Amino acid sequence: MFESAELGHKIDKEVFKQEVPKLRAELLDVQYDVLQKKEFPVVILISGVDGSGKGETINLLYSWMDPRHISTLAFSAPSDEEAARPYMWRYWRALPAKGKVGIFAGSWYSQPITDRITGDMRRAELDERLDDINRFEAMLVNEGALVLKFWFHLSKDAQKKRLKALEKDPRTAWRVTPESYDRLKTYDKLQEVAGHVLRVTNTAKAPWIIVEGTDDAYRSLTVGRIVLDAMRRRLQQPLQQVPVAPPIVHPIDQKNVLSTLDLTQKLGKKDYESQLAKYQSRLSELVREPRFVGKHSLVLVFEGSDAAGKGGSIRRVGAAMDARQYQIVPIAAPTEEERAQPYLWRFWRHLPRIGRAVIFDRSWYGRVLVERVEGFCSEADWLRAYAEINDFEHQLVASGTIVVKFWLQISAEEQLRRFKERQDTEFKRFKITDEDWRNREKWDAYVAAVCDMVDRTSTGLAPWTLVEANDKNFARVKVLKTVCERIETALKGEGKSETR
Amino acid sequence: MFESAELGHKIDKEVFKQEVPKLRAELLDVQYDVLQKKEFPVVILISGVDGSGKGETINLLYSWMDPRHISTLAFSAPSDEEAARPYMWRYWRALPAKGKVGIFAGSWYSQPITDRITGDMRRAELDERLDDINRFEAMLVNEGALVLKFWFHLSKDAQKKRLKALEKDPRTAWRVTPESYDRLKTYDKLQEVAGHVLRVTNTAKAPWIIVEGTDDAYRSLTVGRIVLDAMRRRLQQPLQQVPVAPPIVHPIDQKNVLSTLDLTQKLGKKDYESQLAKYQSRLSELVREPRFVGKHSLVLVFEGSDAAGKGGSIRRVGAAMDARQYQIVPIAAPTEEERAQPYLWRFWRHLPRIGRAVIFDRSWYGRVLVERVEGFCSEADWLRAYAEINDFEHQLVASGTIVVKFWLQISAEEQLRRFKERQDTEFKRFKITDEDWRNREKWDAYVAAVCDMVDRTSTGLAPWTLVEANDKNFARVKVLKTVCERIETALKGEGKSETR
Repeated sequence: MFESAELGHKIDKEVFKQEVPKLRAELLDVQYDVLQKKEFPVVILISGVDGSGKGETINLLYSWMDPRHISTLAFSAPSDEEAARPYMWRYWRALPAKGKVGIFAGSWYSQPITDRITGDMRRAELDERLDDINRFEAMLVNEGALVLKFWFHLSKDAQKKRLKALEKDPRTAWRVTPESYDRLKTYDKLQEVAGHVLRVTNTAKAPWIIVEGTDDAYRSLTVGRIVLDAMRRRLQQPLQQVPVAPPIVHPIDQKNVLSTLDLTQKLGKKDYESQLAKYQSRLSELVREPRFVGKHSLVLVFEGSDAAGKGGSIRRVGAAMDARQYQIVPIAAPTEEERAQPYLWRFWRHLPRIGRAVIFDRSWYGRVLVERVEGFCSEADWLRAYAEINDFEHQLVASGTIVVKFWLQISAEEQLRRFKERQDTEFKRFKITDEDWRNREKWDAYVAAVCDMVDRTSTGLAPWTLVEANDKNFARVKVLKTVCERIETALKGEGKSETR
Repeated sequence: MFESAELGHKIDKEVFKQEVPKLRAELLDVQYDVLQKKEFPVVILISGVDGSGKGETINLLYSWMDPRHISTLAFSAPSDEEAARPYMWRYWRALPAKGKVGIFAGSWYSQPITDRITGDMRRAELDERLDDINRFEAMLVNEGALVLKFWFHLSKDAQKKRLKALEKDPRTAWRVTPESYDRLKTYDKLQEVAGHVLRVTNTAKAPWIIVEGTDDAYRSLTVGRIVLDAMRRRLQQPLQQVPVAPPIVHPIDQKNVLSTLDLTQKLGKKDYESQLAKYQSRLSELVREPRFVGKHSLVLVFEGSDAAGKGGSIRRVGAAMDARQYQIVPIAAPTEEERAQPYLWRFWRHLPRIGRAVIFDRSWYGRVLVERVEGFCSEADWLRAYAEINDFEHQLVASGTIVVKFWLQISAEEQLRRFKERQDTEFKRFKITDEDWRNREKWDAYVAAVCDMVDRTSTGLAPWTLVEANDKNFARVKVLKTVCERIETALKGEGKSETR
């Protein structure tokens, strides 16, 4: 892996001095093009062995480009807000917006590599993490990001020499700490672990660029040229998204997970009231349980046909919790800041910390529902969304989040009845818009999208619950009962629950 | 203060049941009007003695309104990210956007009241804090927010009775903790402190509403009606901003802080290089000092005429620091999310944590410069901005932030020369736009605005440094030297520095 980076690459200082002005002018120009286009962010990872010039290179990039549109993020121990959420949360919140350059000094690779060297992470765990990383980076690239991953290498001798040299110079002596010398001792182990990590994560979408760190001029010029070239090429060749999944096939007999629901199920007033009280009080106890508060968080997803009663169900669930413990996030059109980020970013930002709950009124599933049906995103985008969503929810569950997803289904006739009823209502929140009527005309397309969604994203860890919602009482009790059961299952530590 | 809230207010449960449906329908309607108008946020503070029904009332408001557009924030111990910034930062980040309702269960009042009761805060400190709060709330109201501050009161006997009753009911027993009974012991002290706090913060813009908490029906209906009425009135009567400051008077002899600058000051290449190196290396050491890293943060503000060389100065300052330690925030037009918040919100969100630096390339002073000159905000808005800005910077300094503000001044002739030079440049980042030429025509208006700004916001804690920038070398060295000196002064703990 590192062979080519131990050849003693070197360039003449004079050559360097000659080259830099042109490189700098070109880098600045291309940076301004990227900034003005605002079409993609540039994500640069600077990693490698101690003393290989990571900090120097970052500072040099700042001096070559316009530093006002670059941000650098170093990651040491997670803050308590970060530690209470899935481990990738801190990286999501640090992603640069489209048009900007984000340098990661230390990244999602740092912790796994360190933990593997110290033995705090088993090999199997590491490989699982690397899978996560590969999928995360593929997502970034598919969302348009230019991802450049640099690894600065030094031979063992070169590392020792560079540390000594840094120490000698009063301007850089502070960079060398006792830990730097400790790292010399773990040099071989690092090479082994890093070699494995780099091999596994050297993907076509986000390949590693290994640079010999021994000679400052060589390393700097190499990085500068690669960054320039990559930004230029990305500007010239807009991302080609090739749909990789086969066309989705639909059953020819009209039987599907929605058509087979028994929408006639009902609950009388008395039963409703007693069961509602029962499950609300159970839920209220469950979310106050120390086992929940100290280890879990709760993410509820409500999707459903228009007028299926999402709001009413959400209200009944909320009523069982203390307002200080949960947040309802209604999903409408993304804001400008959200549009400048990968699709899932606007959901990551609302994730609850441990002990808290967030109820999403519509969710990331918009990608494979309304965006698919209305053509708001490309086929390639929604086809890959299934896997991205599964990854996202997998990370949630792995961090202790209980993910409960509801699809509320009503019949076309019931929807028509409710629409007409709402037309006469005096409540402004229930006004039916032209858009609602238009959506109704696409009923079949939505049914197909829902069936695909359920098939592709109902996982053991985060199953869909389909709710027969023609009768509101029945639906609300089913929702509450399901939430209670899923929390109970999680608290028992069994981790899995049924799909329906 | 609390006399009217010990009269045993009570309403009949039947009356309550009759009233609620109408109140609820009206609240929902008015909430939707507020949501659709998106003109102002509703900030509701729910505070008061333990057992007075704070939690119940919040949950009731949720059930009466659409909970999807309400957020409730409880504030316990600050997270480490919050603790490393000015104490108001956590409240700024929790402010609801225009159109939304934000309920503060616990607020900027909680800590001061608790600390005063335990004796951790002296009376003088408390009064200073209350001044801060009054100014903060006045700012919120001036920015359009509807601020409703509720204090739920109970007589000592009533508190004891309510705690017993809560304890008896299995559904509410969990609300009563040993601490609740401790609070009974400090009842008198709380009344004394709260009485003082409420009197001092009972302003015309944000008066307190004291509600007797003994009877649930009375308390709930009172709060519901007040919220309804206040939202309605706010919708009908748009905020009238009366400029309270007298018209700003300008000297009739053309002598001002800018015209008296000696713009001929220069620095030769050799002197420049040696002094640049000297101050960059000093700055580099200062920001690594444990005394800085553990206790201070650095906020640099760069303002100046167009083409005055802000970018070049920022670059030289940045070059002295490690890219991982600082962030440059270029201020352009606010985003949609920023426009939905008070003016200063978009600066609060970028504040550095302790040990870090943020360089603002243009800043909150846009309010009293470009926004004033171009008429982007009303006269009342920019007139009050001086005091708001001074408050903001005062809070920064009080939390350990070193605030250094630069105005870079060039002559009109020098600007013309630079504009012409830039027209021929090949660097895209230096392209002169039509807007730059238009701004130039308003030279005199900008001079007046700058002079007012310096007069009104150059405080002992956060003085302006005016930089003679016709000669770039001179300007850059003056900037670096000033930053060093200001940090040194702060580390010496003297706290104050000169204006120029």
